[in-house]
Amino acid sequence: MNIAVAQSGGPTCAINASLAGVYNQAEKLNEIEKIYGSFNGIEGIINDNLTDLSGRLKSSEDIELLIRTPSAALGSCRRKLPEYAADSSVYQVITECFRRYEIGIFFYIGGNDSMDTVAKLSRYFEENKIDIRVIGIPKTIDNDLCGTDHCPGFGSAAKYVAATVQEITRDSNVYSKPSVTIVETMGRHAGWLTAASGCMRMNGESAPHLIYLPEHTFCGKRFLSDVTDMMKRHKAVIAAVSEGVRTSDGRFAAEDYQSCKKDAFGHAYLSGIGKYLENLVSDRIGCKVRSIELNVMQRCSSHFASLTDIEEAQEIGAAAVRFGLEGKSGCMMSFRRVSSAPYRCEIVSVPAEEAANSECFFPMEWINDSGNDITADALEYLMPLIQGELNPIMKNGMPQHFIV
Amino acid sequence: MNIAVAQSGGPTCAINASLAGVYNQAEKLNEIEKIYGSFNGIEGIINDNLTDLSGRLKSSEDIELLIRTPSAALGSCRRKLPEYAADSSVYQVITECFRRYEIGIFFYIGGNDSMDTVAKLSRYFEENKIDIRVIGIPKTIDNDLCGTDHCPGFGSAAKYVAATVQEITRDSNVYSKPSVTIVETMGRHAGWLTAASGCMRMNGESAPHLIYLPEHTFCGKRFLSDVTDMMKRHKAVIAAVSEGVRTSDGRFAAEDYQSCKKDAFGHAYLSGIGKYLENLVSDRIGCKVRSIELNVMQRCSSHFASLTDIEEAQEIGAAAVRFGLEGKSGCMMSFRRVSSAPYRCEIVSVPAEEAANSECFFPMEWINDSGNDITADALEYLMPLIQGELNPIMKNGMPQHFIV
Repeated sequence: MNIAVAQSGGPTCAINASLAGVYNQAEKLNEIEKIYGSFNGIEGIINDNLTDLSGRLKSSEDIELLIRTPSAALGSCRRKLPEYAADSSVYQVITECFRRYEIGIFFYIGGNDSMDTVAKLSRYFEENKIDIRVIGIPKTIDNDLCGTDHCPGFGSAAKYVAATVQEITRDSNVYSKPSVTIVETMGRHAGWLTAASGCMRMNGESAPHLIYLPEHTFCGKRFLSDVTDMMKRHKAVIAAVSEGVRTSDGRFAAEDYQSCKKDAFGHAYLSGIGKYLENLVSDRIGCKVRSIELNVMQRCSSHFASLTDIEEAQEIGAAAVRFGLEGKSGCMMSFRRVSSAPYRCEIVSVPAEEAANSECFFPMEWINDSGNDITADALEYLMPLIQGELNPIMKNGMPQHFIV
Repeated sequence: MNIAVAQSGGPTCAINASLAGVYNQAEKLNEIEKIYGSFNGIEGIINDNLTDLSGRLKSSEDIELLIRTPSAALGSCRRKLPEYAADSSVYQVITECFRRYEIGIFFYIGGNDSMDTVAKLSRYFEENKIDIRVIGIPKTIDNDLCGTDHCPGFGSAAKYVAATVQEITRDSNVYSKPSVTIVETMGRHAGWLTAASGCMRMNGESAPHLIYLPEHTFCGKRFLSDVTDMMKRHKAVIAAVSEGVRTSDGRFAAEDYQSCKKDAFGHAYLSGIGKYLENLVSDRIGCKVRSIELNVMQRCSSHFASLTDIEEAQEIGAAAVRFGLEGKSGCMMSFRRVSSAPYRCEIVSVPAEEAANSECFFPMEWINDSGNDITADALEYLMPLIQGELNPIMKNGMPQHFIV
């Protein structure tokens, strides 16, 4: 039997580690002959754009580089499949491709849209008595997949956010003047990554002094009063804010600000909550203020990946191969946390439907009553995920990457 | 004799390493009794806010943490001294403070404003026959100090920029759609840091495909035609742009864009060249485009510092102590490059005036004729400065910092 693997959704630091996990495990097993990689997720299957990975991953050094390379080595896509009851044509194209390459199991590494593909495709195969299994392997820096304790990719992003906000805190404390620094982190709907900034408190830091997540209603007025309060206690106030914080009417907090502004070309202004709050503080408090967007560095800074994250990403990829050979299909691999201290997780599988098209939010009980901080329980959850470092393999003073 | 040391200007990853260099060298020498640190640069001398550093740096572990801590552990300031011929009152306050603490030599780690202080203060002491020496130790991520081959702090910032643009390049190549990514780097007047993005070519990367420095006239129209050309050859075009690029009339390229826009509070819009060019590409080319500001992470990401930079920063701090004891004053310590391959620098001293109030620009002969790239000579200069890593001392999965 041959297998195929593909990557989908937004880039992370761990999605290539899961690819390596699938490859390494499959390589070891006699039941599996060829391991194909599909370029740009399911699009590669639809467009017959596959590669025999053994021709690309030629040495153990290649594998070591692959697991240290951010983003998706095979490329990604954002394609969702239609319901096959309405239109099965693309399912037929996929089936033909799998038959042509004699694929017995398809592994799809991705987020909730990808799990939707896993669920639909496996159901189609089952209903049409086609013996091809489909298994989902989770990944997302947003950590918002249901059915798993956490998602590969999140730990590295969380580690980057915590360490970077710590460095920004040093930078912000350099002058004697009072100041406010607003750090905007990714997370349109779920606040996990913003919450991770709180980890630095475990190293004795008072910052971030304020943490705002999309799960709790955001209010500009309350924000200003929070900042004013914190300025009484701290010379340099640091606030971590999710890009997705919303006001009580359910709209993004920066929405009005964005929509009422047009740039020189008449486009709606697309900058985010950080710039909005920077202007708010500047206007209403009048102190030195700046905003910093962590941008894609949150998801691609593999030079500072979490070893726990990268190892788990490989393990869950390897486990997917074992589960697939045991006959599983239509499932997503998942972590079940046994304990936080000492940290221990088991790998199990859950129906892909559980993760498809749903979002796992940061628990309200881990947010304080004022909605401007996280609790100790949150830190207990987060801390194990950012432990350990995977040092890059350096060349010329820069990390070396693997390019397929 | 006692000595005092202070830090000034914008934060870097190496300014604490120079502090450690001064401290370690002075500690070894019998001629020097107490080593005082002045908080917030020269302000600490003016306001009598000094600390006996031996009470703060209690172990070799403290020193190891200090050299790995970004920003200025003693705090910084942006204060310039008046000409003493016009107003000598602050010079008298400074002299009294130095006498009170029996300071024989004052070490000032900073950029060109700080070298202005070194020059003025040493001249004042000399003219008034006051036996206090003043020595400048260079630091700036901008690398724009005259009189030295390069500046401590630049190498680490350069390494961060090169590695981060490399990671952003991976991130940008993930989808099959053509795209343009604009990375905005620091450098109001000098393009050294933006040029450092070019180092990644040494690892076989084609990116960054376009590099724009403030030294070469910038033209939006030419930029669009450069991008269009590059899109024929590369799926994901990466352009590195200095925040300070200027049009032929000498104004910042984003200036019109900024000044014609007002935010919701009526403030002029302060975002930079990246966002401006993003809108320009979106409007005129219409492809997928995004801009990324590397922001203060360029200067404070000590978790990824250049070992060469941090070691040199310590060495130049130690050399300052030796030069001071030999009777030097009014000078800035400086690197003179002996060779690039193998890399070797000597530490010498130059008159502080040479560095004060002037700027060292990126050489025009290291920019290609089209003004959108750097030459091989530039890479030969840059590469030695980003070599080696200084791994952070980790605690709880995050770098540990030293806080005075």
